[in-house]
Amino acid sequence: MTQLPDKVLKRLIVPPGTRINLRRDYDPGYTGGLSSRGDAGEQLAEGIERLAEHQDKLYAQNTYALLINLQAMDAAGKDSTIKHVMSGVNPQGVQVKSFKVPSEEELDHDYLWRNFLALPGRGNIGIFNRSYYEEVLVVRVHKEFLERQQLPPGRKTDTIWQRRYEEINNFEKYLSDNGIVVLKIFLNVSKETQKKRFLERIDEPEKNWKFSATDVLERRYWEQYMDAYEEMFNHTSTPWAPWYIVPADHKWFTRLAVVSIINAMLGRLDLAYPEVSPEKKEALMQARRMLEDEERDPAPPDRKKKKRKR
Amino acid sequence: MTQLPDKVLKRLIVPPGTRINLRRDYDPGYTGGLSSRGDAGEQLAEGIERLAEHQDKLYAQNTYALLINLQAMDAAGKDSTIKHVMSGVNPQGVQVKSFKVPSEEELDHDYLWRNFLALPGRGNIGIFNRSYYEEVLVVRVHKEFLERQQLPPGRKTDTIWQRRYEEINNFEKYLSDNGIVVLKIFLNVSKETQKKRFLERIDEPEKNWKFSATDVLERRYWEQYMDAYEEMFNHTSTPWAPWYIVPADHKWFTRLAVVSIINAMLGRLDLAYPEVSPEKKEALMQARRMLEDEERDPAPPDRKKKKRKR
Repeated sequence: MTQLPDKVLKRLIVPPGTRINLRRDYDPGYTGGLSSRGDAGEQLAEGIERLAEHQDKLYAQNTYALLINLQAMDAAGKDSTIKHVMSGVNPQGVQVKSFKVPSEEELDHDYLWRNFLALPGRGNIGIFNRSYYEEVLVVRVHKEFLERQQLPPGRKTDTIWQRRYEEINNFEKYLSDNGIVVLKIFLNVSKETQKKRFLERIDEPEKNWKFSATDVLERRYWEQYMDAYEEMFNHTSTPWAPWYIVPADHKWFTRLAVVSIINAMLGRLDLAYPEVSPEKKEALMQARRMLEDEERDPAPPDRKKKKRKR
Repeated sequence: MTQLPDKVLKRLIVPPGTRINLRRDYDPGYTGGLSSRGDAGEQLAEGIERLAEHQDKLYAQNTYALLINLQAMDAAGKDSTIKHVMSGVNPQGVQVKSFKVPSEEELDHDYLWRNFLALPGRGNIGIFNRSYYEEVLVVRVHKEFLERQQLPPGRKTDTIWQRRYEEINNFEKYLSDNGIVVLKIFLNVSKETQKKRFLERIDEPEKNWKFSATDVLERRYWEQYMDAYEEMFNHTSTPWAPWYIVPADHKWFTRLAVVSIINAMLGRLDLAYPEVSPEKKEALMQARRMLEDEERDPAPPDRKKKKRKR
């Protein structure tokens, strides 16, 4: 078995068109009935190998791109998931973009602008480490951030979140219709596990340099964040770009679930190496003859006829 | 032993300020006295592990960036070197940029412009799969490509290559002075091995879709390319950005040499995890107390005081 069974993956999806209850229906400690971390390690390695094969075809076919939006509370394991799941995949076909606090230049644009610039090209996997979804999460929890945004008059009303959900759904529909497959993953960590991981970070010399004390203050908005996430799931899990809520209290399960979700998604695309047309086959045979005949005619060809190769 | 010995690496460098003879002094079949492919595999795995450690510190320190320019004739193994050496490194800190035939927009700019846009940020490793060096290679061999470039009158003279060498040297000096370390690697394949690999590509169904018959025509300019490369090495191997000529007839040796060169370069930087200042230490202790006291005071803090976290 190279990935989690369908019935486990199905429990992680947010069914489009329904209303879920985040706290009640999605347990951060769920491990799909698996209890052994050791077996998971082997499954993960197999899953990564399979992902590498998918990615090779994706790249060769050059028709689809895969955009993975990763969202989570702090210490849910976004960075380590990227590291452990995507290491092993050819870096030539993978780009990771971390979105930070918007710059002045970025605020001069609409909120999707900087995301557009970072979209993966065809044949590529793009990972957004946080994304445009922050616009209905942190900006919703801390409405003062909305003040910085240069929106036209009358836009900063309570209906803005509903409008943003629709804008995002339309954006993702457009991407999906144009071959950019959108996959959205929320790493669902419990407040208790976040606390445990924060304390570990404070104590470990190799980790504490990256810990910011303000992360602790942000915990006080936990319930507001959960409300914002739940609203978001209920409005933006669509047939063309569903949300997955991945339990994140056990890192080994998180990684296995993420690689399984990606593989299931790529498996549904018709990925294949390009077929060689009869014309191309003939050109290949001609190339073979040219190589074999090379010794007899070493002079440069007419330069005008040659296509530029770089 | 996790990498090639210094005396082997030293043979691969182009000593700044000297003139080398590419054909005479650099054997594409050289393997540094190693004969066993099996041992090399283990050494490569160790080298990649070491590279991953270096990269983690590079990222944490956020002071230096590493730019690796990869140049080569077709079928020398650029793509497979990137795949085998850089898979295993956290993709969050590695970006690969392949430069293709310049677009109309790119030709509207100076030739370094598109390279600037793709430079790695601090803490990152950027790999240029071909680079601005094409401007003194393919453009020099096929001077008709220079015609497309919108240069001011009087610039398209025979002195243009000399001027470009100087411009490139100044560009790399600037990068190096600002913390972007430049490493330049030429994968040195023999014409005979290229032919062998071309024939393999034509015959293998998983590879022949990407083979272009025009690649065969380009072989007729082999000697002109070797001249252009030699000239380039003799003018752009500098103390701040030396060229390495890596034998590429044996892929196992190529990969081992490349990982060794990168590790040697990163090993010379003063990479370390950031030190935690006394002030930061105090803030960490305060964060710890806050976490421990949390149950007693669950109310949100004054919003105005909080720093935005995204």
